[in-house]
Amino acid sequence: MADPWQECMDYAVALARKAGDIFHGALKEEISIMTKSSPVDLVTETDQKVENFIISLIKEKYPSHSFIGEESVAAGEGSILTDNPTWIIDPIDGTTNFVHRFPFVAVSIGFVVNKKTEFGIVYSCIEDKMYTARKGKGAFCNGQKLQVSGQEDITKSLLVTELGSNRDPETVKIVLSNMEKLLSIPIHGIRAVGTAAVNMCLVATGGADAYYEMGIHCWDMAGAGIIITEAGGVLLDVSGGPFDLMSRRIIAASSRAIGERIAKALQIIPLKRDDATN
Amino acid sequence: MADPWQECMDYAVALARKAGDIFHGALKEEISIMTKSSPVDLVTETDQKVENFIISLIKEKYPSHSFIGEESVAAGEGSILTDNPTWIIDPIDGTTNFVHRFPFVAVSIGFVVNKKTEFGIVYSCIEDKMYTARKGKGAFCNGQKLQVSGQEDITKSLLVTELGSNRDPETVKIVLSNMEKLLSIPIHGIRAVGTAAVNMCLVATGGADAYYEMGIHCWDMAGAGIIITEAGGVLLDVSGGPFDLMSRRIIAASSRAIGERIAKALQIIPLKRDDATN
Repeated sequence: MADPWQECMDYAVALARKAGDIFHGALKEEISIMTKSSPVDLVTETDQKVENFIISLIKEKYPSHSFIGEESVAAGEGSILTDNPTWIIDPIDGTTNFVHRFPFVAVSIGFVVNKKTEFGIVYSCIEDKMYTARKGKGAFCNGQKLQVSGQEDITKSLLVTELGSNRDPETVKIVLSNMEKLLSIPIHGIRAVGTAAVNMCLVATGGADAYYEMGIHCWDMAGAGIIITEAGGVLLDVSGGPFDLMSRRIIAASSRAIGERIAKALQIIPLKRDDATN
Repeated sequence: MADPWQECMDYAVALARKAGDIFHGALKEEISIMTKSSPVDLVTETDQKVENFIISLIKEKYPSHSFIGEESVAAGEGSILTDNPTWIIDPIDGTTNFVHRFPFVAVSIGFVVNKKTEFGIVYSCIEDKMYTARKGKGAFCNGQKLQVSGQEDITKSLLVTELGSNRDPETVKIVLSNMEKLLSIPIHGIRAVGTAAVNMCLVATGGADAYYEMGIHCWDMAGAGIIITEAGGVLLDVSGGPFDLMSRRIIAASSRAIGERIAKALQIIPLKRDDATN
């Protein structure tokens, strides 16, 4: 039997690349900025334009499929994950980077059926790196097979995470205190390029040994999550338990040992789930 | 009169590019790691090989010139800056990145005469980006002229800095508390790609609005410092006073206003100067 979702994946890759063209055009213009949940949670007309572009073209081809998109949710649509084939889309992962023209901005597309991810795509537009993974068939960047580092020793690890866009003093304190606990293990270091999706892809390439974050959304993780697992990595909840796409928290690691050691260090930030109904 | 230092600069660009070839070769092999000041202050044979390569070829051509190189200093040579034409070299800025194959690693060369920088070169090898600046003649990346963002409003700024390799608990606390103070202004965010030189070049491109750090060395700043000023930015001390290349601390900003606002927020970490004689 032919792979039923390969056609969807090929279509998604083509759309992500076209979305990249919209970006490159937008980077040459003045970028008009709006804010969402806080003065530093930014959104631009380009986020909305790219999401509409991607969703309308997928709807045309697959009218029965469901969608969870960052900007659609911001505009009031729900984000309940059902068993229906569902496209989970972040049109611009790294909007703050985009606004500043800091060179990491990604289109992220995850495709989930029966609550299991079938494929994921992260297109880092400015770098022109197309990361893809199909369940059971490996992860690739521009056609080159990806493999996590496999590092198991936390004291030899390089981590990626973000300070996030929440400026609530208590949250900021926990974010920084978590970094302090990890640094003092000690670890080699922490890097932050400003997009969850690209950070996770850097773990998939073996360039970093783990990524963790709390406060992100399903559309930040759906595309890159399967890229991590297909590159040989593991996804965990920040508690060390099983990863939950709608929980707004993740550890994506090159080995279970490193992931569990990070979980042990982290103080958990209370968060409203993506699928909370109120 | 012909520019007396242009020939040196052309030579340095060619050497940086050749050093990049040594890296690319080393990235394909097993990287053997040693440590310096702490278990997370790493050095590799490639650092030493690249520095010896660069310095020996410059010495051959300019036998009267002086040198301050990261690995030569680590091996016991002095780092007193005189009025003699002096090459200040970091063979691999971002050694931890290099060890992990995290994709930002730079060769940094600054050329200083009468204690004033005449030109600077930062070659980000994996990205293949050659940043250059000649005093009074502008800053460039792969031939394209660079211009800082010019942003003056700290609340609209994106900063770059690093957590550093010092794991002394008091130092880590100050580093994180400085981040906390800046985040709460609020600012848009903080990024860290793992090399001072590339972080500074990102400010020169306009992709970030300022970089600050304490604990780095003259060889981390000498190449990129003039790239910042020739792109229209300013260099300040972390106190807000004049920048001092041997002080191990810097604010490199797209405007004086942003630089001074950062200085106001920072708690200063006591450091031994690069030219301290004991």
